[in-house]
Amino acid sequence: MRNAITDVPGVLVGHATRAGDGALTGTTAVLFPPGTLSTVDVRGGAPATRDTAALDARHGGRAVRCVVLTGGSAYGLAAADGAAREVGSFVPAAALYDLGRGGVFGTYPTPEFGAEAVRAAGVDVPQGNVGAGAGAMNAALKGGLGTASVELGSGVVVGAVAALNAAGSGVDPATGLPLAHGSGLPGEFPPPGGDDLARPMPAAVNPFNTVIGVVATNARVPALYALAAAGQDGLALAVDPAHGMVDGDTVFAASTGTHDAPVEEVLEAARHAFARALVHGLLAAESVTTPWGHLTAYREQYPLTAAGYRRGTR
Amino acid sequence: MRNAITDVPGVLVGHATRAGDGALTGTTAVLFPPGTLSTVDVRGGAPATRDTAALDARHGGRAVRCVVLTGGSAYGLAAADGAAREVGSFVPAAALYDLGRGGVFGTYPTPEFGAEAVRAAGVDVPQGNVGAGAGAMNAALKGGLGTASVELGSGVVVGAVAALNAAGSGVDPATGLPLAHGSGLPGEFPPPGGDDLARPMPAAVNPFNTVIGVVATNARVPALYALAAAGQDGLALAVDPAHGMVDGDTVFAASTGTHDAPVEEVLEAARHAFARALVHGLLAAESVTTPWGHLTAYREQYPLTAAGYRRGTR
Repeated sequence: MRNAITDVPGVLVGHATRAGDGALTGTTAVLFPPGTLSTVDVRGGAPATRDTAALDARHGGRAVRCVVLTGGSAYGLAAADGAAREVGSFVPAAALYDLGRGGVFGTYPTPEFGAEAVRAAGVDVPQGNVGAGAGAMNAALKGGLGTASVELGSGVVVGAVAALNAAGSGVDPATGLPLAHGSGLPGEFPPPGGDDLARPMPAAVNPFNTVIGVVATNARVPALYALAAAGQDGLALAVDPAHGMVDGDTVFAASTGTHDAPVEEVLEAARHAFARALVHGLLAAESVTTPWGHLTAYREQYPLTAAGYRRGTR
Repeated sequence: MRNAITDVPGVLVGHATRAGDGALTGTTAVLFPPGTLSTVDVRGGAPATRDTAALDARHGGRAVRCVVLTGGSAYGLAAADGAAREVGSFVPAAALYDLGRGGVFGTYPTPEFGAEAVRAAGVDVPQGNVGAGAGAMNAALKGGLGTASVELGSGVVVGAVAALNAAGSGVDPATGLPLAHGSGLPGEFPPPGGDDLARPMPAAVNPFNTVIGVVATNARVPALYALAAAGQDGLALAVDPAHGMVDGDTVFAASTGTHDAPVEEVLEAARHAFARALVHGLLAAESVTTPWGHLTAYREQYPLTAAGYRRGTR
C-alpha cells in the first residue's frame, strides 16, 4: 500500500506542474480502468467544471477513463482538451482558482498540461506543490495536492486524491494541528510535539479558492453519488468553513466495481480518506516566494521536530 | 424586430462554421450586456457542458457575458477557451453531437471557433447550417440553427436561439408539418400547402444528438431557472420525443433585467419562442452531401410552393 488513490487497482495519477517565470499552477490527471463508473458532487457557490452534467447522479453516472483536476479557474478547464485527446474519450474536469499566484495572472493550464499529466500517470503520486496543487492555497497558508487510501480487508480499497485550495482553514487555531488530524490512521500523521500555544495564523488574503478531488474504490457502490458526498463530508472534516460561496468544491466518485463490501464501511472510509488526503496536501506543501508574495507552508509555520510538530509560541 | 434573440437589447450572436474537407460543424457565441444574469437547465441523459455548475440555479445563477453553443460533442467544448480569451471572462458552454457528419470523425471545433464566433457577433443571425447548427440533424432530416423573438409590449422582448439536433423528430408524421407549427406568430410559418398525405419520413440513423440553446429577455425574472425550464418546455413542443437518454438537452436562460413584466407572460413567451426557434432551424436547414451521407433537409423532403408546403405523397 502506498497510502495513495493508486492503491485502488488500475487507478493511475499523473501531474503536469509549472512553477517560475510567472507560473505557479498545474494539472492532475486521474486515470481509471475500463468500466469504471463515475459521478460527481458539486458544492459551493463558485465551481468551475466541465462535463459534470454528463456524470449527473440522477442519470446514474457514467463510465469514464479519466478525470482532470486543474488550476487556472475556468480558463484552466482547457487542460481537459489535451487529456481527452490523449485518452480518446471525454474527460470531465474541475478547476480551482490559483490565477496570479505565480506572478502573472494570465498563466494557466493549457491543453498540453492535460496531455502531459496523462502521459505522466503512474502509481507513485507526488504530493504538495504539484499538479492541481501547485498554486493551491489554504486560507493564508500554502495548500497542495495530497492522496491517501485505506484497505478494508478482502482486497477492498478506498482512496482519494485532492487539491487543498480552500478559503477556510485546514488548521485548528486552538492547537495548530490539522483539523482532520484525528482522521489519521495509526502513525500516519506526526504527533503533536509539545504543549506550546498555537502560533497565530496569518490573515487569509485570497477570496477565490475551491477544493477539488476524486474518491475511488474497487467496491461496488449502489447509488454512487453517496461516495462523492462522502468525499465532501471529508472536506468538511478537514476545512473550516467548507463549501463557501467563494469555493466551488467538487468531488468526483469512481468505482471500478470489482469487489463487494458493506456500503457504510466504504462511505466511512471515503470520508476519512478524503480528509486525510487533504491533510497530506497541507503537510506536503512547501513555502514558495513568487512576485505575488511569500506563500508560507504549514511546515514553515509549524516546523516538525523529532518529537512531532513544534507548535509555535505567540 | 428581426424575429431573433438579438431583438433583446444588447444581445448579439455570432457564428463560426466549417463545411467541407471532412468538416460539418461550428460554434455559435451569444453575447450579453454587462449585468446579465444567467442560469441553466440541463436535461437528457448525455449532456456535454462546461461551467453549467457555476450557473446552478440553487445558487441564484451568475452574471455572464457570453455563452457558447457548439458542435463537436465534449471535444467541441474547447471552443469556449477561445471565446473566454476574446471576452475576458469565463464562458459557459454546451455542445451537441455532430462528430463525423462531415466525413472525418476527428474534426470538431477548436478554441479558434469560439474566438471567431465572438468576433463575428452582431444583430443579424444567420440560420440553418451555421454555427452550432452546421452539422445538426433532426432524426433523419438535417437539423439547423434557428432563432425567434416576441415583443410583449412596453418594450419587453423574449428571444431564443437554438440548434435543432434531436433524436426525436420535429415533424408531425400525420401531417408533415413541423410539430410546433401551431406556436408560430400570425404569418410566421408557411401554411400547409394542400391535403396530400404526409410523405413518410426516412428512418433516423444517428443515435447521438442534443438540442442546445439560449432563452433571453430584458424582463426581470424572479427565480430565473423557470426561464430555462420554459425553454425546455418549448423543446418538448417542437420535438417528439425530447429529453431522451441519448440527448443532453441544455437550455441557458439570460435576463438583462431592464424591464418589468408579468412573469407568467414572459415564461409563456419563452416557451413558444424556443419552439419557434427550433422550427426556424428545421425550415432553414439545407440538404448537404458529405462522405457520411446525404443529409436531407426538411425543405427537400417537403418542398415549399407558393401555396405553402407541398406535402409529399406516399
